[in-house]
Amino acid sequence: MIVVMKPNATKAEIDGAVDKIHRSGLDVNISKGAETTIIGVIGDKKKIANLQMNMMPGVEKTVRITEKYKLASRNFHPQDTVVDVGGVKIGGKALAVMAGPCSIESQEQVDEAAEKVKAAGASFLRGGAFKPRTSPYDFQGLAEEGLKIMRNSADKFGLKVVTEIVDKDDMDLIGAYADVFQVGARNMQNFQLLRALGRQSKPVLLKRGLAATISEWLNAAEYILSEGNPNVILCERGIRTYETFTRNTLDLSAVAAVKELSHLPIVVDPSHGTGRWEMVRPMARAAVAAGCDGLIIEVHPHPEQALSDGDQSLTPKNFERVMDEVRSIAAVMGRTV
Amino acid sequence: MIVVMKPNATKAEIDGAVDKIHRSGLDVNISKGAETTIIGVIGDKKKIANLQMNMMPGVEKTVRITEKYKLASRNFHPQDTVVDVGGVKIGGKALAVMAGPCSIESQEQVDEAAEKVKAAGASFLRGGAFKPRTSPYDFQGLAEEGLKIMRNSADKFGLKVVTEIVDKDDMDLIGAYADVFQVGARNMQNFQLLRALGRQSKPVLLKRGLAATISEWLNAAEYILSEGNPNVILCERGIRTYETFTRNTLDLSAVAAVKELSHLPIVVDPSHGTGRWEMVRPMARAAVAAGCDGLIIEVHPHPEQALSDGDQSLTPKNFERVMDEVRSIAAVMGRTV
Amino acid sequence: MIVVMKPNATKAEIDGAVDKIHRSGLDVNISKGAETTIIGVIGDKKKIANLQMNMMPGVEKTVRITEKYKLASRNFHPQDTVVDVGGVKIGGKALAVMAGPCSIESQEQVDEAAEKVKAAGASFLRGGAFKPRTSPYDFQGLAEEGLKIMRNSADKFGLKVVTEIVDKDDMDLIGAYADVFQVGARNMQNFQLLRALGRQSKPVLLKRGLAATISEWLNAAEYILSEGNPNVILCERGIRTYETFTRNTLDLSAVAAVKELSHLPIVVDPSHGTGRWEMVRPMARAAVAAGCDGLIIEVHPHPEQALSDGDQSLTPKNFERVMDEVRSIAAVMGRTV
Amino acid sequence: MIVVMKPNATKAEIDGAVDKIHRSGLDVNISKGAETTIIGVIGDKKKIANLQMNMMPGVEKTVRITEKYKLASRNFHPQDTVVDVGGVKIGGKALAVMAGPCSIESQEQVDEAAEKVKAAGASFLRGGAFKPRTSPYDFQGLAEEGLKIMRNSADKFGLKVVTEIVDKDDMDLIGAYADVFQVGARNMQNFQLLRALGRQSKPVLLKRGLAATISEWLNAAEYILSEGNPNVILCERGIRTYETFTRNTLDLSAVAAVKELSHLPIVVDPSHGTGRWEMVRPMARAAVAAGCDGLIIEVHPHPEQALSDGDQSLTPKNFERVMDEVRSIAAVMGRTV
Repeated sequence: MIVVMKPNATKAEIDGAVDKIHRSGLDVNISKGAETTIIGVIGDKKKIANLQMNMMPGVEKTVRITEKYKLASRNFHPQDTVVDVGGVKIGGKALAVMAGPCSIESQEQVDEAAEKVKAAGASFLRGGAFKPRTSPYDFQGLAEEGLKIMRNSADKFGLKVVTEIVDKDDMDLIGAYADVFQVGARNMQNFQLLRALGRQSKPVLLKRGLAATISEWLNAAEYILSEGNPNVILCERGIRTYETFTRNTLDLSAVAAVKELSHLPIVVDPSHGTGRWEMVRPMARAAVAAGCDGLIIEVHPHPEQALSDGDQSLTPKNFERVMDEVRSIAAVMGRTV
Repeated sequence: MIVVMKPNATKAEIDGAVDKIHRSGLDVNISKGAETTIIGVIGDKKKIANLQMNMMPGVEKTVRITEKYKLASRNFHPQDTVVDVGGVKIGGKALAVMAGPCSIESQEQVDEAAEKVKAAGASFLRGGAFKPRTSPYDFQGLAEEGLKIMRNSADKFGLKVVTEIVDKDDMDLIGAYADVFQVGARNMQNFQLLRALGRQSKPVLLKRGLAATISEWLNAAEYILSEGNPNVILCERGIRTYETFTRNTLDLSAVAAVKELSHLPIVVDPSHGTGRWEMVRPMARAAVAAGCDGLIIEVHPHPEQALSDGDQSLTPKNFERVMDEVRSIAAVMGRTV
Repeated sequence: MIVVMKPNATKAEIDGAVDKIHRSGLDVNISKGAETTIIGVIGDKKKIANLQMNMMPGVEKTVRITEKYKLASRNFHPQDTVVDVGGVKIGGKALAVMAGPCSIESQEQVDEAAEKVKAAGASFLRGGAFKPRTSPYDFQGLAEEGLKIMRNSADKFGLKVVTEIVDKDDMDLIGAYADVFQVGARNMQNFQLLRALGRQSKPVLLKRGLAATISEWLNAAEYILSEGNPNVILCERGIRTYETFTRNTLDLSAVAAVKELSHLPIVVDPSHGTGRWEMVRPMARAAVAAGCDGLIIEVHPHPEQALSDGDQSLTPKNFERVMDEVRSIAAVMGRTV
Repeated sequence: MIVVMKPNATKAEIDGAVDKIHRSGLDVNISKGAETTIIGVIGDKKKIANLQMNMMPGVEKTVRITEKYKLASRNFHPQDTVVDVGGVKIGGKALAVMAGPCSIESQEQVDEAAEKVKAAGASFLRGGAFKPRTSPYDFQGLAEEGLKIMRNSADKFGLKVVTEIVDKDDMDLIGAYADVFQVGARNMQNFQLLRALGRQSKPVLLKRGLAATISEWLNAAEYILSEGNPNVILCERGIRTYETFTRNTLDLSAVAAVKELSHLPIVVDPSHGTGRWEMVRPMARAAVAAGCDGLIIEVHPHPEQALSDGDQSLTPKNFERVMDEVRSIAAVMGRTV
């Protein structure tokens, strides 16, 4: 931590600040500039994390220097992490493509979707059985019935299942059907859920919160990792900005940022990231070109009949077209689909 | 819902859109302007909520007209709601002031804080026993030990207890000590927690999410109300913007907006809302002048020793000064403290 | 400036960074922590401003410590600035109230507005003769005709004139009629306009840009001040956020921030800040309670006929009510209206 | 425009609203739903643009339906626009690559940059002679001297010149040296500058404002187009969000949005868009995959000595690598570099 003193800070104020740092069991390094004195705080990271200096007289501001996450950081784990989902890899040479309807509605619907997305090259079936919805009056998902349907379809067509968990009490139930737990944007800082998922070993797809910084996101991943589960996959799904044309603003620079700051694999969700099906194709291409490790895309056999998010779902035919283009971009990136 | 057709939409496209609406069991009202045809959708609100039109050929965009929340809406409940917390009212003539340390650290600390805030005019003791923290390595609270300390202090000095719940499994435990459950910004859309709190009757202080719209916030309140608990108090605590000087941007216009849209009482948290103790005083005054029903303020007997958020905590002496000024503003507003 | 090295930075990389700083004519202060080495850069502010370190090998990030503005800073000018507009003060004990229609439309309209706002306690007539509008097809203002109308009304009723300048070529023309130049949010970083206004002596009301940080805003003020004109009044008018219920998000904490960082007076515009006339009253009260030095409010004798921004304009009667309430809050603040 | 009445609006209130619309010379289409009455306003676009309904009793809100821009809209001009810059096309099959230093510093610097970027495949030399800087104390550019240097280098190596204009008074001067005028983000709504550029015929590269919506951006383009200059190129350069890791958040979905809404070509600036040179490569690839028509990239022969924005500038060698990768992605997109 750096403590910046006010230009007119008195000697007594500087001494007071230094004294407080010393009493906290920390060391200082003082740097007197032309106008400003700056105090560098040295010592135990945990003590620094709890040090509060802004209310001390003469202090202008403090600047925190180091990130708190460690297990998620590339600094301490330079090698890329590859998550293995029953033989299917996320983070390796092959892109992981997850596709399927927003909500699970019926076996017929999911079978149709699963068959088509498998044929087009997806290796994961995505779909919601427990849906977090803005209004309590919206469709909330089929629960266990939905999980069964997904598992059936997935087994029939050779896919893995990724589905959202919104309540840690559902962990065993969902775990009995799914291969990957998805944590949605609204729950990115539901720390109890993260800890619970960290105490088991199935992979977790951690979506970025609606207004989460990359640092907060990696700290959220740290909650899972620090409990012992190393199988975390990050998912960029758009952030909230002032723009209203798109549902969210898909932040593809987060892919490059995560690749620099962390070793964890990252997939991109262009469906929620834009909220407009016509934009899924260009954004899927762009995400792969940016260097992501996979895509998660909403595909519904009949989007016009979808119970949720039909506006952002692709038809199987449009998904096929996306996959064709993604495949070409992936080849340029030295990757396969 | 309004469906706006593209300027060059064909008759077949317009007919197709109308047909889909009819097949969904809804009626239309067609309005042909010079350039654009607009289709108003009429009928059952739930059917409209699930209608997806953006993927239909010729459709430019859709505009949703009505809010989904009902029990939280002033349209259907014109009278102000007053929440009664064991005889202390929130939403009536008297402002409810909640004060205390960010984290509960020791009986001595809390007693000192409680005595002082009571003397200055607070009627609620606030403090965290279960702390949601960005990093897993930060201090996470004293749990039940902290709850006991709060209850002790509160009883000693005649205060009510408001404290955060982060896990629905803790509901009975916290409920045994607290008078009001607080739901933090990170959990505003933790719908399982909201539902659980809706199925009991203790009041709930629902903080606005970091990047939640007012509409989403009122829909979150609806989750509690729709389960049967009418005792919801809203709390504005600052939203996330691009500005970095303050920790958050305190949105006082939300007070006026909530007063227009809803009958629920609203309190303001200038401590988290700014993240800077020097700003708590002016923002507390402004919040009362904007028409809020109460304040929640961090007060620590020794902010420089606080285990969390010391930078935004007031000393008891500064809190007293805030209360003096708030009292004068409240008088102008026809309210008491 | 602080240069933070990566945890695994080599000695050669640290030496390389230090060497570059030395070659830039600057000194260093090195602080070796457990994990990270931090280099404090000391010396001439201008040289530091132009130092680029992020592309040096081993550098994790750089943190700029000091603000670039000086004349606008309270650190170097502790006393509050009071701007004198022909005898009417902005920044002193009395609040400056500026009121009038968004656009100047006719002599009759402005006379009616001017008479009413003067009677209610305003000392400035505001109104637009040159309007910056999002679309080229919107009403752009009456230009010189509008200026004449304003001057007439203002003289008739004893008011000062504040009006927007959007083009430095209009400076003489507008200066012939107006007492205060207003720079709108869209032009906050139109540096040529700011410089031109700095080279004359009439006061300038500088609105905060739509997405400007407080630091950028004070740097924009510095453009005017550094050319020799000390008469700058800041104006908070709402910032752009994700919230759509209000037109902008009025950031009243900016009032407290400006009071801490700068000596310049600050007024608040609750009309543009919210975009909703029903919110002007609570936000005007809150702004005064937050400590602002004045208000700028849209008042139109017949808002339902206004050529622009009628939705956020008050009737004279509503304005009177605002003024009554503002007066009571001002009294508590030890100020007059 | 759609006028949404409150659920409890009286017949008199509905009649009053309709009456006001009729008196404005417009027609209505009334749609009575179960809860809410909605009034569609039909008639002359300009009259609707000036209609103000929110202050009418019983009105809940109004929704504007149609965009105001016309010449910029694909609805009225389905064919892609290709801008011809002395034989070099922007918007056609070939991607336009613009590269060069942020600030023009010396002939030697620019020659070195120009030679290298030409060799790597750029067809435009970019560079700033007039720099809009946040602080008045930062380097403001070499002015005409800088323009001469650029022209020299460009002619020597067969490049076109694109450079920023910040003051309409400089139009003839800059026009004497440059092939394309660049309007920076801070001036996107400097309407006087836009109009002036619309009254001449040289192409204009219009950067998106820091917090501009896509709609505002296209309306800004409309200012140029409506004065008679059809040669507008849009440039996405990152928007302001809460994220601090990157300087801005590059919004690549804007590329897809612009392609849908408008016929104008769009280029992407990954240098300002991220503010970090390591991110330029992945974001350049992603931009091309998203479907942009060109790139504008900062290249400095010695970024560590740059007078501005060195942190985001590429070395010529790194630029070459970017171009190699961009070329492969472009090929997949059916385009050339």
